[in-house]
Amino acid sequence: MKLANKPYKGTADWFPQEFTIRKYIFDVWRDVCTRFGYEEYLSPLVEPIELFQAKSGEDLGGRELMTITDRAGRVVAIRPEMTPSVTRMVSQIYETTTKPIRYFSIANFMRAEKPQRGRNREFWQLNYDIFGAEGISADLEILQIALEIMLSFEPPKGSFTLFLNHRKLIDELLRSIKIEDDAVTEAIRIMDKWEKLTLPDLEERLEKIGADQNAIEKIGKFMELTEMDGLLAEFPELKDTIGLKDVNSLIISLTKMGYGDWIKFQPNIIRGFDYYDGMVFEVFDNNPSNLRSLFGGGRYNGLSSIFGSEDIPAVGCAPGDETIKLFLESWGLLDQLESSKTDKYYLPLIDERYDTQCELLAKSLRSEGKIVERGLSLIKPGKALSYADKKRFRFVILLGEEEIRSNTYTLKDLSTGEQKNIAYSELQS
Amino acid sequence: MKLANKPYKGTADWFPQEFTIRKYIFDVWRDVCTRFGYEEYLSPLVEPIELFQAKSGEDLGGRELMTITDRAGRVVAIRPEMTPSVTRMVSQIYETTTKPIRYFSIANFMRAEKPQRGRNREFWQLNYDIFGAEGISADLEILQIALEIMLSFEPPKGSFTLFLNHRKLIDELLRSIKIEDDAVTEAIRIMDKWEKLTLPDLEERLEKIGADQNAIEKIGKFMELTEMDGLLAEFPELKDTIGLKDVNSLIISLTKMGYGDWIKFQPNIIRGFDYYDGMVFEVFDNNPSNLRSLFGGGRYNGLSSIFGSEDIPAVGCAPGDETIKLFLESWGLLDQLESSKTDKYYLPLIDERYDTQCELLAKSLRSEGKIVERGLSLIKPGKALSYADKKRFRFVILLGEEEIRSNTYTLKDLSTGEQKNIAYSELQS
Repeated sequence: MKLANKPYKGTADWFPQEFTIRKYIFDVWRDVCTRFGYEEYLSPLVEPIELFQAKSGEDLGGRELMTITDRAGRVVAIRPEMTPSVTRMVSQIYETTTKPIRYFSIANFMRAEKPQRGRNREFWQLNYDIFGAEGISADLEILQIALEIMLSFEPPKGSFTLFLNHRKLIDELLRSIKIEDDAVTEAIRIMDKWEKLTLPDLEERLEKIGADQNAIEKIGKFMELTEMDGLLAEFPELKDTIGLKDVNSLIISLTKMGYGDWIKFQPNIIRGFDYYDGMVFEVFDNNPSNLRSLFGGGRYNGLSSIFGSEDIPAVGCAPGDETIKLFLESWGLLDQLESSKTDKYYLPLIDERYDTQCELLAKSLRSEGKIVERGLSLIKPGKALSYADKKRFRFVILLGEEEIRSNTYTLKDLSTGEQKNIAYSELQS
Repeated sequence: MKLANKPYKGTADWFPQEFTIRKYIFDVWRDVCTRFGYEEYLSPLVEPIELFQAKSGEDLGGRELMTITDRAGRVVAIRPEMTPSVTRMVSQIYETTTKPIRYFSIANFMRAEKPQRGRNREFWQLNYDIFGAEGISADLEILQIALEIMLSFEPPKGSFTLFLNHRKLIDELLRSIKIEDDAVTEAIRIMDKWEKLTLPDLEERLEKIGADQNAIEKIGKFMELTEMDGLLAEFPELKDTIGLKDVNSLIISLTKMGYGDWIKFQPNIIRGFDYYDGMVFEVFDNNPSNLRSLFGGGRYNGLSSIFGSEDIPAVGCAPGDETIKLFLESWGLLDQLESSKTDKYYLPLIDERYDTQCELLAKSLRSEGKIVERGLSLIKPGKALSYADKKRFRFVILLGEEEIRSNTYTLKDLSTGEQKNIAYSELQS
């Protein structure tokens, strides 16, 4: 039987060229989080499904779970997101650990959704979170890191916008239009799908949770707002809410810190996770060729209650690899990465008598931190040069009779064409 | 309902202290492979199960698979090992790519086995392989990298041994005792379990594949050999086999290259994967408290045939995180890693009026590459110092009225007790 050699639907083979791009993104994530004092952790790949069923929402925590029944009959799922897992971890150590706790992780996830541009079944995410800090200083730091990550890619002005909102503002809206407390989760799920569902579908789902015609109209108006002024004119009753006050403070602070051009209040940013209960935000690509939400985050103080813990103040964010890559492509920010020659050395075997000397020279150069690829079979110097050129290596090292006699090696720099002889001390093990 | 906050059986939560150890191991892996000119790739987390059923062996490719049935009814499994996946990837590009191809990856895997010391259900592995190189120079490089990885941890002399063997030697033995060709795979599976099964079980399984009493005895004797001399005395008919010739050449070369003290020929090293067909090896911890196989590798030219490709010469190795960690622990090689103070800066808010200045100073220091943790709420200087001490930060920065007035900040070095004032240019965004 012959097997197919293509990857499973919605997953991808990352050959080295692709891996270089992903690693560039991961390195930026790790670097920024580390500079802000975040510590790296990792959760298990699978968790009992109840963990995700609790509050991940109807898609992620439901039909999109990739589930496995183990031999003991236990049902586990590949993590579709990190927030429940990291909350589970933190709930173990919260009482005994110095707070605030700043954590980040870079991990792979799976969701059984229909693959489409920007969405794979397997994907990688950075998750960074602060636990144990209630005030908006923590919100501010989470937003700043999101901005610093984006700015690390050196994007052009106006290329992205971070849209800020607050779940307590939505809660207040729903209260003002008489949505019952126990229908709030469903109302927010509906609002989160505003762009994806048809108007009749939206109305039907809203009527089911007791929204009257006025309420439906108000929600519709709210979802079309794009400015603070419009919000205050249309919904003066929301003016003095905590949500709006916090959003205003955050915008003022971010502006003082130099991020004013990149941020904007946007009342229809919802975030489709049931557990958010404070500030929420999403970063959007403004490139006409790639208008999309890149990633987002928010506050979720209440999630820890699923473990029977007291509320643990928590706020975080989760950028994904695929959308960040689309952003970088849309603005041509990967071009340099793809064209650079690598500082690698190629050390071919041009004279069989000196195989051991070649090995020892390679060993010695590597111990200095150099990247040295050995030729595994006899090759003519000319062919060696064209091999190195094809593989975009910068240096070729030749070790033939003449070199051995003079205790040197010939170093060719393919980027300049220069060639020199370099002495080495004896090649002995 | 209250959920448990412990991880799923056989998986682990890596809190930052644990993550630091794993990352140290991963960084060594990546560093050594990179210096040998290997390029990093990554395969999908899941593959159609047929890929592993083909040649991963009765355990890994059978009852230990963690399987998922997707909504289209397709059955996939979380990868239990990398070799079939990377072979699948390479088979796509083999014809059109400059050879040899040197690849490595660091990835997570799952096997539904009984968790025990050194074996978790989820684990991480380095896989490094050369494709498209037939001769023993490639085998040699794979062995050298295994040794360099081990030596990078700076272990004491005699702490580990790399045991070398050759599948063609085993094949020759089986032929000499009249095991039929189509029973060789099963015979090797039985030999691989020699230590784990009882003698009657071994005999029963061997009889089933047609081994007579002489053959069973011979296999028993072979499995007890530990020296080249013993092998030649007991099995003179194996003297001129390719397997033995290759093993000898490899040992001579490795000795010339300075690795002689770390390597040894060992005829009963089998490796429990059906696909191996040339040199095989395993690295063992020699610590009496942790006598175990750490990892291994070998040549598997024939595996690509499952994709209907021509044989692709392939040789590789796969160290795992858990056994390497046990090795490091057994020799006390993690002690230094665990006790060091981090070069982090703590910048607390000691005067609310200067919140924005603190933010801007933190931003400026981070842009110089420093790791700066901001205090999120007002704190007294004394408490700030004890917080930093508890978290093992090296530096504390204080920005109060006096400092602001003189355009400086106070820098305290907790490792020396020194304190100085450092001037900054204006703190504006």
